[in-house]
Amino acid sequence: MTGLLTDLYELTMAAAYFDAGRSAEIGAFELSIRRLPRHRDHVIVAGLQQALEYLLELRFTAPEIDYLRDLAQFARVTPAFFDYLRNFRFTGDVFAVPEGTTIFAGEPMLTVRAPIIEAQIPETYLLSTMTFQSLIATKASLMVRAAAGRPVIEFGTRRAHTPEAGVLAARAAYIAGCAGTSNTLAGFRFGIPVFGTSAHSWVMSYPTERDAFQQLQQILGPNTVQLVDTYDSLEGTRLAATLGLPLWGIRLDSGDLAALSKQARVILDAAGLRETKIMATSDLDEARIAQLIAAGAPIDVFGVGTELATSADAPAMGAVYKLVEIQGRPTAKWSEGKASLPGPKQLFRLPDRDILALVHEVPPPGAEALLQPVILKGQLVEGPRDVDITRRRAAQPAQQRPLEYSDALTALIKQTHPK
Amino acid sequence: MTGLLTDLYELTMAAAYFDAGRSAEIGAFELSIRRLPRHRDHVIVAGLQQALEYLLELRFTAPEIDYLRDLAQFARVTPAFFDYLRNFRFTGDVFAVPEGTTIFAGEPMLTVRAPIIEAQIPETYLLSTMTFQSLIATKASLMVRAAAGRPVIEFGTRRAHTPEAGVLAARAAYIAGCAGTSNTLAGFRFGIPVFGTSAHSWVMSYPTERDAFQQLQQILGPNTVQLVDTYDSLEGTRLAATLGLPLWGIRLDSGDLAALSKQARVILDAAGLRETKIMATSDLDEARIAQLIAAGAPIDVFGVGTELATSADAPAMGAVYKLVEIQGRPTAKWSEGKASLPGPKQLFRLPDRDILALVHEVPPPGAEALLQPVILKGQLVEGPRDVDITRRRAAQPAQQRPLEYSDALTALIKQTHPK
Repeated sequence: MTGLLTDLYELTMAAAYFDAGRSAEIGAFELSIRRLPRHRDHVIVAGLQQALEYLLELRFTAPEIDYLRDLAQFARVTPAFFDYLRNFRFTGDVFAVPEGTTIFAGEPMLTVRAPIIEAQIPETYLLSTMTFQSLIATKASLMVRAAAGRPVIEFGTRRAHTPEAGVLAARAAYIAGCAGTSNTLAGFRFGIPVFGTSAHSWVMSYPTERDAFQQLQQILGPNTVQLVDTYDSLEGTRLAATLGLPLWGIRLDSGDLAALSKQARVILDAAGLRETKIMATSDLDEARIAQLIAAGAPIDVFGVGTELATSADAPAMGAVYKLVEIQGRPTAKWSEGKASLPGPKQLFRLPDRDILALVHEVPPPGAEALLQPVILKGQLVEGPRDVDITRRRAAQPAQQRPLEYSDALTALIKQTHPK
Repeated sequence: MTGLLTDLYELTMAAAYFDAGRSAEIGAFELSIRRLPRHRDHVIVAGLQQALEYLLELRFTAPEIDYLRDLAQFARVTPAFFDYLRNFRFTGDVFAVPEGTTIFAGEPMLTVRAPIIEAQIPETYLLSTMTFQSLIATKASLMVRAAAGRPVIEFGTRRAHTPEAGVLAARAAYIAGCAGTSNTLAGFRFGIPVFGTSAHSWVMSYPTERDAFQQLQQILGPNTVQLVDTYDSLEGTRLAATLGLPLWGIRLDSGDLAALSKQARVILDAAGLRETKIMATSDLDEARIAQLIAAGAPIDVFGVGTELATSADAPAMGAVYKLVEIQGRPTAKWSEGKASLPGPKQLFRLPDRDILALVHEVPPPGAEALLQPVILKGQLVEGPRDVDITRRRAAQPAQQRPLEYSDALTALIKQTHPK
C-alpha cells in the first residue's frame, strides 16, 4: 500500500511535524459520523478489514519519495524527513467498532492513537475506505429489510465507482445481509457466494432464442437461469417453460415487473414448473422492492445493481477524522457548523441508549464498549473479523436511540471551549 | 489484471460459448450511453487509458482458475475450458472515442470486436471504468464552467468510493479542466499538479493558533496556505495577516463563504497582502460556485470534494455494452425501454449534428469519425493519449446537437426488428 494514496497536505503536515521536532508526540484521532447520510437513520459499519490491511502495509518506495522531494511544497523540508519516510511503519494503536455494527450520528467508528505523523497520513485513506463500505452496507440493509426474507443479490459492479469498488461493494452488501454477489473476485477473495444468470448477448448470438436457451441448459444444467426479456418477456418465459427442466429460474429484466412476474408464474406453474424461481432486476431499490412485494409480485429473488453499488440516493457520508488529543492535551475544533468534541472517547451501548464517554471511564452496568482494540503497537489484534461473522452482527441492527454524553465528557467540552 | 474482476455470468457465458464450439466466432460489442446521467446534457468521455490497460493485461492465475472449477456453475464445463483460461489473452480490436470528447445520449464511446469470449468477459470492467471516469469528468466540466476562469482543484479522495477511485476521479477531473488535485498518487502516477493546504489537526496540535501558523510558514515558505477556520475564520485571517509574508493564501472551510471572503479580503488588503489568495472549500458544487461568483465573493481558488469525487447528484450513468454483430450477422435487443441498435457503427461529428452510421459507410464531407482504433489484434495502437492531451480536447466541448441515423442504419434497424 503506497503512502502516496493520500491528500498532499497530510504529507506536508507530516514534514512540518518532523521539521518541528514533534514526530514522537502522540496524537489521537477519531473517525466519526458528523452527519448521517441523507435519507438514512443509521449506518452499518463496514470496511474495517481493508483499513487495517492498509495501516499494516503502509510504505513509501524510493521512486515515491523522490517524487515528493521534487515537489515545490517540500523544497524547504530537511532531507532527514525523506529517510524517515523510507523507514515508515505504522506503530500505533487502533480501536474500532466491529464491522456489521449499527451506529448513529455523532458516534465514532474508529480511533487511531499513534505518533502524530503516523496518525495524520492515513486520514484520507481511512475515511474513504470506511465510509464507502459503510454507505453500501447501510443501503444494502434497507434493501434486505424491504425484501422481507426473500434473497437480495448484489449485481452492481458495472455501476460501481471503479471495478475495485465493485468488489468492496459486494463485500459490504454481503455483510449487511445480501445473499451474495455477481462479482466473481469478491467470491474468490472473501468467500462470498456468487451468482449469475445469462447474457442478452448470449441470446442474441443465436439465430433463435430457442437455440440459445437449449444450449444454456445443456451446459449449466440445474443452475440454468434463462434471461427472458431479450425480445419479449412472456414469449421468452413460454419458451423456457416449454423446454422444461433443468431450470433453476427465469429472470425478468425490463418492463412492468409486477405484472410480468404474475403472468410468468402462471405460465411456469401451468407447465408444472412450480419450483422454478422468478428473479427480477432492473433499477431496483428498497422502495421498488417494497412496492413489488405489496403488489403481490411472485418474485423469489431480487437482483440489485446501480442503486446499491453506488448508494445512489446518498452517495456520500459526512464522516470526519479529527484530532482529539495531543500529548495528553484534549483538542477540539469550533468551526461554524463543523465542531468536534475533545478527548479520546469510548462509545457505550445500553439497551435503550448510547453513551459517549471519555476513554478511561468505568462502563455503566450492562454496557457494551463498542470501540475495541484491533491494532496495538502496530500489531494486528487477532479477532473474529471475517465477513460471515460481521454478517451475523449486522443481522441484529440496533434500534434508534438517544446519544448521551457522560458527565466527564460534558465537563471536558466546557473546559476546552474557548468562549 | 485478474479476469475474475467481472460478473460471474460473463464467465459462465464464456464457458458456454467454449462448450458450444463457438470460441472462434467474432462478435462486436458497443459500449454506449443509453440515457444521460440525471441533471446532465452531455458526457465527457474519460477512463479509456485504464480500459486499455485492463484489456492488454487481462489474465487468469492458477488459483483463480481452481476457484472457478470448484463452483457449482462450472460443474458440467469441459476441462479444456480451464486450459483456455490459462492461456487467455485479448487478441481483438478496440475502437474508441478519444478521452476528453463530449458525447450525448444514444452515442457509442467504445467498440470491441474480438472472438466472442474475449469480448464478453470484459463487459463489467469496461462499463465500470469508462462510466465512472466519464461521470467525474462530466461533473468537473460543470464546476470548471461555473468557476468562469478561476481555478478549481479536486479535493475529494476522502469521499470517493474507495481510495483508488479517488486517484481516478482526480485524473478525470483534471482531464475536464480542474487545475489539479490533492491526491498525491494521482500526481505521481499521471503527472497531474498537486495542491494542499493545512490541517485542522495541525492548528489544534499547538497550544495557540499563532504557534501553528508561524511554524507552518517556516516550513512551507511561499507555499503556505493557512487554514483559518479552526476556531474563528476572521480571527484566523487577522492572525495570518499580522504574521504577513511568506503566505500564498488563506483557506476558508466553513460558514458563510461569500461574507467571510469579502471580510477576509479587506483584512488581507489592509495588511498590504494584496497578492495573497483566498481559497474556499466546504461542500461546493457548480451551483454554489456560481452563487458565490454572482455574489461578488473575492474567492481566487475553489476546492471541491464530495460533490465532484462522487458526482453526488448523478452518481451513475445508464451506459450499456451490447452485442451488435456476431459472425457478420447484425444483432439487436428489443426489450421494453431497453432496446439496442444493430450493427457495428461509426459516430460522425459535423459542426451542427452527429450522425450514427454503419462502420464502413463513407464519411459525410467534413465529418470527424469519433471512433478511432486504439487496439488492433491485441496490440496497442500508439497514439497521443496522456492526460494533458485529452485535457486540451475537453477544453473544446461540443455543443448540444441532434443525433441522426444514416440511411443505411435506419434500413438495418427495420430489417432486424422482428415485428
